[in-house]
Amino acid sequence: MLDNLALRPVATSPSRTLAEFAAGLHFSDIPSAVLERAKLLILDALGCGLASNAYDFADAALAGAVALGGEGPCSVIGRSVRLPVRDAAMINGILIHGLDFDDTHLASIIHATAACLPCALSFGESLGVDGRALLVAYAAGMETAIRIGAAAKGGFHHTGFHATGIVAHFSSSVVAARLLGLPADAIMAAQGIAASTASGVQVFLEDGAWTKRLHPGWAAVAGITAARLAQNGFKGPGRPYEGRFGLFDTHLQHPAAPIDVAAELESLGSVWELAETAIKPYPVCHFIHGCADAAIALRQELDPADIGSVEALLPRDTMPIVAEPAAAKQRPANDYEAKFSAQFVVATCLLKGAFGLADLMPAALADPAVLDLAARVTCSIDPDSVFPTYFSGGVRVVLRDGRTLFRHVRINSGAGERALDEAAVSAKFLASACLTTTRPDAERIRDAVLSLETQTAAGLAALLRK
Amino acid sequence: MLDNLALRPVATSPSRTLAEFAAGLHFSDIPSAVLERAKLLILDALGCGLASNAYDFADAALAGAVALGGEGPCSVIGRSVRLPVRDAAMINGILIHGLDFDDTHLASIIHATAACLPCALSFGESLGVDGRALLVAYAAGMETAIRIGAAAKGGFHHTGFHATGIVAHFSSSVVAARLLGLPADAIMAAQGIAASTASGVQVFLEDGAWTKRLHPGWAAVAGITAARLAQNGFKGPGRPYEGRFGLFDTHLQHPAAPIDVAAELESLGSVWELAETAIKPYPVCHFIHGCADAAIALRQELDPADIGSVEALLPRDTMPIVAEPAAAKQRPANDYEAKFSAQFVVATCLLKGAFGLADLMPAALADPAVLDLAARVTCSIDPDSVFPTYFSGGVRVVLRDGRTLFRHVRINSGAGERALDEAAVSAKFLASACLTTTRPDAERIRDAVLSLETQTAAGLAALLRK
Repeated sequence: MLDNLALRPVATSPSRTLAEFAAGLHFSDIPSAVLERAKLLILDALGCGLASNAYDFADAALAGAVALGGEGPCSVIGRSVRLPVRDAAMINGILIHGLDFDDTHLASIIHATAACLPCALSFGESLGVDGRALLVAYAAGMETAIRIGAAAKGGFHHTGFHATGIVAHFSSSVVAARLLGLPADAIMAAQGIAASTASGVQVFLEDGAWTKRLHPGWAAVAGITAARLAQNGFKGPGRPYEGRFGLFDTHLQHPAAPIDVAAELESLGSVWELAETAIKPYPVCHFIHGCADAAIALRQELDPADIGSVEALLPRDTMPIVAEPAAAKQRPANDYEAKFSAQFVVATCLLKGAFGLADLMPAALADPAVLDLAARVTCSIDPDSVFPTYFSGGVRVVLRDGRTLFRHVRINSGAGERALDEAAVSAKFLASACLTTTRPDAERIRDAVLSLETQTAAGLAALLRK
Repeated sequence: MLDNLALRPVATSPSRTLAEFAAGLHFSDIPSAVLERAKLLILDALGCGLASNAYDFADAALAGAVALGGEGPCSVIGRSVRLPVRDAAMINGILIHGLDFDDTHLASIIHATAACLPCALSFGESLGVDGRALLVAYAAGMETAIRIGAAAKGGFHHTGFHATGIVAHFSSSVVAARLLGLPADAIMAAQGIAASTASGVQVFLEDGAWTKRLHPGWAAVAGITAARLAQNGFKGPGRPYEGRFGLFDTHLQHPAAPIDVAAELESLGSVWELAETAIKPYPVCHFIHGCADAAIALRQELDPADIGSVEALLPRDTMPIVAEPAAAKQRPANDYEAKFSAQFVVATCLLKGAFGLADLMPAALADPAVLDLAARVTCSIDPDSVFPTYFSGGVRVVLRDGRTLFRHVRINSGAGERALDEAAVSAKFLASACLTTTRPDAERIRDAVLSLETQTAAGLAALLRK
């Protein structure tokens, strides 16, 4: 066999910083409050995964996976069939992210746990790791996903890429490489390979297609692939994020502000961004949560029959995603379009004083009262938004008698000082899980996740199976 | 199970046009001259694949694939180990494209066969199709890859994406869906799903990393996945190419000219672009081929010892890829950087009057005579280039006595009216294949490919195994 000469060496690089952090991280390095938060995030994600099994996209995806590679050793959340590891990771990703009810790190504008857990759960099960190893890999992946997302400063949304999908390739490669116990050089190479698979565009917004649901699971497939290739000496580029024709150069093109990944990494290990990840109280796009809070609060002050017109105030950068084109947003064609419609969500909250999974069912989407009010909701830019630090929002209602009611929410519920506590996360988990499983089974899963450091990946996976 | 409502319908779309073309294509629709050309392209690609087995990247990739999914039923070009279908397709893609010696459709600036054959060969073997079905799927994929590439008008290279990697996701999804015999609606959905996996950036250019080699094989993995998901009802977006936040919107951002995919598709079925695909006489980036032709011609008119300085004239758009930064290009650190160095290639051609795989071996890369001359090569924009119709190039040599010699090549050898004929392709195949296999085995493969319409995919795959 002929040898290639060595790669042109790279002195330092954000991918090396992340690789050294991931390779050197010990379970005892994770502060206990961060660990507790991590387990709540994992619990919430698994509840979303269980709920997704009530929907047709889950059946279609699972049938596709079985056709792809047949059965295998790894568990699928809420199902009896078992799959090869990469297919299990793909389907678990689709289940966790499929309802868009999973967590979001606001400042980086990504679904952080979806970008890490599918790989951690399935590859961890396949490798037979214990709960501590799973948590360490998950934590290293979360810090990777969040900091790469934060460095982009919302730019992926501007250029039309799906930020979660893109960063999940890098975080999954770190999770997989860490689960394999690879040295820093190989974790760096895995990130370099991930730059070549990173993908996900938002064209699904046009017609409510299912592809956004696929992105984090597909990234898990890619991350496992990248880690195995790197483990065996396949050479990745040394500057996947900041290099010429690297991630930021290609996917942001003309960023509004300079991209400085290294700055985002300075606090690695001293500040745990994963603990800032917000758990969603409503199963709709996180950009709408401030408005939903405001509308639910206003519901207590008015009779919906008195409403004349409504103005929803949204962060400027989110308007193309959740407010435009207005005519389509006011009559969502399916549950997925409804999740991304500020008009529909605000109308529902004003009418019902709440928003749950039932409000996305076909009967709710066809409800004349909701559609009539949604047609009277206009969307404007919120001048007082602190987006993306928090997903602020406001609602102004003009009543038929001419009076105006207004409510502005700076910090959306579930975020920052308004984070959901263990009791609230547990309640959300049980409500979601019990759509497709029994209460005793759901409680067993909850208890295992909340003591994950004493469990094994395979033990948790076994509980998750039907 | 709960039903989603229908997707918002899409009236017509390039992905529907391509889907209907692929679904309706019969073997007898392919003109015999196109069929003969297709077989030569496949033969050339398999020769490249066999030659790659002499290089360390092939060993690393194969070891990674075995670690990923273990052994399976599908063949790997030139190896005895067999893999699961997606892993076999990935490795065959790495082998076919790994030396950058595989074909290029010039006007669309993509490695067309690499974007189709890995999926056609391995998925075809897995499904047990005959040679005619393989050729039909390959032809449908080639027309997809070439026309999407042509619509981009070189834009992917400007934004830093790897055009072959990007389009290979769409063409592989069409190949896989056609091999499955899916109806047009599902072939359309597969292309929609491919928009979410399409990936490949050129950051490998910085340090000679191996990731470009991965792109077409990874696209085959994605294409098989997309087709299986679409077959089972997973919903893809209806306007993956032209839609808001679709392929062109996200990956070209601010194109120099309007993108009109529909116009590129008007001649589908009447003009066979695949027949215009150029087979490479030199194992270097196609952008340099005009210069290489010119330098080889000049070699017959001069003594290399008399050369003072050299100016290489290149298509404007290719300069960032093959000429810059000059200092690094003049001293390539490895064989891969050498393939993308106009300075190194022109120097070698002027010294040796030829360029073959041996000129990328470590001894050649360290040859003081080559490096000394490469340091005296400067690169400029060719004012007479017809790129990308052909990959024109020129070389101006200033001799030590002050005389100047100049040669300009409008149509690079291997392209258009200078296409390699069957004898030349066969000779290139045998030279490549015999790096890693015996002459009788190579001749058996050649004979099978040249009569592929009477063979089966599994029969060809068996001949390709070690």
